[in-house]
Amino acid sequence: MVAHLGPELVKTLITGAAGMIGRKLSARLSREHDLILHDVVPAGPGSVASDLSAPGEAEKLVAGRPDVIFHLAAIVSGEAEADFEKGYRINLDGTRLLFEAIRKTGGYKPRVVFASSIAVFGAPFPEAIGDEFVNAPLTSYGTQKTICELLLSDYSRKGFFDGIGLRLPTICVRPGKPNLAASGFFSGIIREPLAGQEAVLPVPETVRHWFASPRAAIGFLVHAAKIDTAQLGARRNLSMPGISATVGEQIESLRRVAGEKVVRLIRRQPDATIMRIVDGWPRNFDARRGLALGFRADASFDDIIRFHLEDEKIPAPRPGSA
Amino acid sequence: MVAHLGPELVKTLITGAAGMIGRKLSARLSREHDLILHDVVPAGPGSVASDLSAPGEAEKLVAGRPDVIFHLAAIVSGEAEADFEKGYRINLDGTRLLFEAIRKTGGYKPRVVFASSIAVFGAPFPEAIGDEFVNAPLTSYGTQKTICELLLSDYSRKGFFDGIGLRLPTICVRPGKPNLAASGFFSGIIREPLAGQEAVLPVPETVRHWFASPRAAIGFLVHAAKIDTAQLGARRNLSMPGISATVGEQIESLRRVAGEKVVRLIRRQPDATIMRIVDGWPRNFDARRGLALGFRADASFDDIIRFHLEDEKIPAPRPGSA
Repeated sequence: MVAHLGPELVKTLITGAAGMIGRKLSARLSREHDLILHDVVPAGPGSVASDLSAPGEAEKLVAGRPDVIFHLAAIVSGEAEADFEKGYRINLDGTRLLFEAIRKTGGYKPRVVFASSIAVFGAPFPEAIGDEFVNAPLTSYGTQKTICELLLSDYSRKGFFDGIGLRLPTICVRPGKPNLAASGFFSGIIREPLAGQEAVLPVPETVRHWFASPRAAIGFLVHAAKIDTAQLGARRNLSMPGISATVGEQIESLRRVAGEKVVRLIRRQPDATIMRIVDGWPRNFDARRGLALGFRADASFDDIIRFHLEDEKIPAPRPGSA
Repeated sequence: MVAHLGPELVKTLITGAAGMIGRKLSARLSREHDLILHDVVPAGPGSVASDLSAPGEAEKLVAGRPDVIFHLAAIVSGEAEADFEKGYRINLDGTRLLFEAIRKTGGYKPRVVFASSIAVFGAPFPEAIGDEFVNAPLTSYGTQKTICELLLSDYSRKGFFDGIGLRLPTICVRPGKPNLAASGFFSGIIREPLAGQEAVLPVPETVRHWFASPRAAIGFLVHAAKIDTAQLGARRNLSMPGISATVGEQIESLRRVAGEKVVRLIRRQPDATIMRIVDGWPRNFDARRGLALGFRADASFDDIIRFHLEDEKIPAPRPGSA
């Protein structure tokens, strides 16, 4: 036995730790948790870099029996759509190998928090997507996430681990560079103008979508690691609360927070392909279960922009200046 | 080129051909179709016996490029629940290997008719399960069927084949011997008394469930092979119409068709385990899409019993005799 000087740290594995959410979650947990950071690329000092879908890698990750596993690793929707085999290998087989490695470890039942997505839903939609709406994804990425949700429920039901899946809204404002996701412009039209750069808007202002700030998303994940899962019953996957806003409303928020001069950096350049993809995406949710279980969304899209400025340490613009 | 003397036969593969539905479907199609029958055990003269989940077997089955594939092969719910690894290997990996073998065959796009199940749904339920109700299965079997439905939709969306999944109601009256399914008694309480044998009823008469005769099920499959799938849109999996009946109503039908003497062969012997399993099962559907697409259920539970007598060539009992 090792003598502990302070309170025992929670041993925590984060897959996809080099991603945007992974990095923010690691930073948030670093003081109270003994972190194992994993990604296919190095996720910082002491992190493990390997391909989760390669034989034996998942076993190595769970060998240390982490108490909590945040499974965030995935390739994004655009890449999964472009490379069918890679999408299934990383997003489905990688997850299944992780779940199998846990199952095969005797006497071990960690909390598994899985980052799912609103891409598990596909049009046509009701006015607001409720907790009993069918999972009929329209992308390979959404299909893979839905399958992982089903596996998570079944493995939890069988007692192999204690899982909870969170359908994260589209994260906005995503800091850093655009990724391959077709949803990239939702962040781009806020982020680039705030950085004094032009941003392309490929869809009409009437397009409505469902958002959470990175800060809200980290809050969801941390809450999911602590929640009493007995409250979930058999349905282990939850749509997270968020903010439903049209692109026009996003732009109005940007105008209120940052002023007209910033808004003028948005350039309209319609893209039929992106419009067609976005047409199949959720617009609004009635995330009743998530709210009842204590998950909290941002209060407004204005707040989403303000959190971006605060969290990324961007000097606040003066709305008055034009 | 082979010279054909008559009209060209439709080349058709049936997996699970040795099962009850497989045998009835083969018999129905034998005149108009050039059949490849497959199962893990021999399914008659000229059939192929192999394990679909073994490497290379799926490729062999699709090498002859069948125009239509009826994928019926599966292990039943009781066995999938008892043997977790076998359930995933046969019901999920076997299906995925078949789908992959089709995808990897160049310039080939068969119609794939997949036998899914109402086990893709789990309680709590609305009064009648509609076409947009969430897939939240409560068994490994239901999880595996749901995952295969999702794969079928995604492979069809990508143009790798032209798939349609049918959620078959519980087949009643199942001829022959009971199988490992926990739903076996729904048929047993009709079949055994009609054969002059005692049957055990493990649940109360108030239990409601969703039924189709083998004749209706074969009708669904044959219709699905011919339907214009453009009508389906992106949602390729359909709940089939059926008959919703309580066990009490089943027994009333049996009394009308076969008389009191036959009904007296049902012995009540409550079984808490079976009751608990059945509690999570669907009771009633609003199968609007299936009906609109021309799928036809039995007209009544009385008909279900009469079809059993006709199709299994059982001498009709005289209801008057007691």
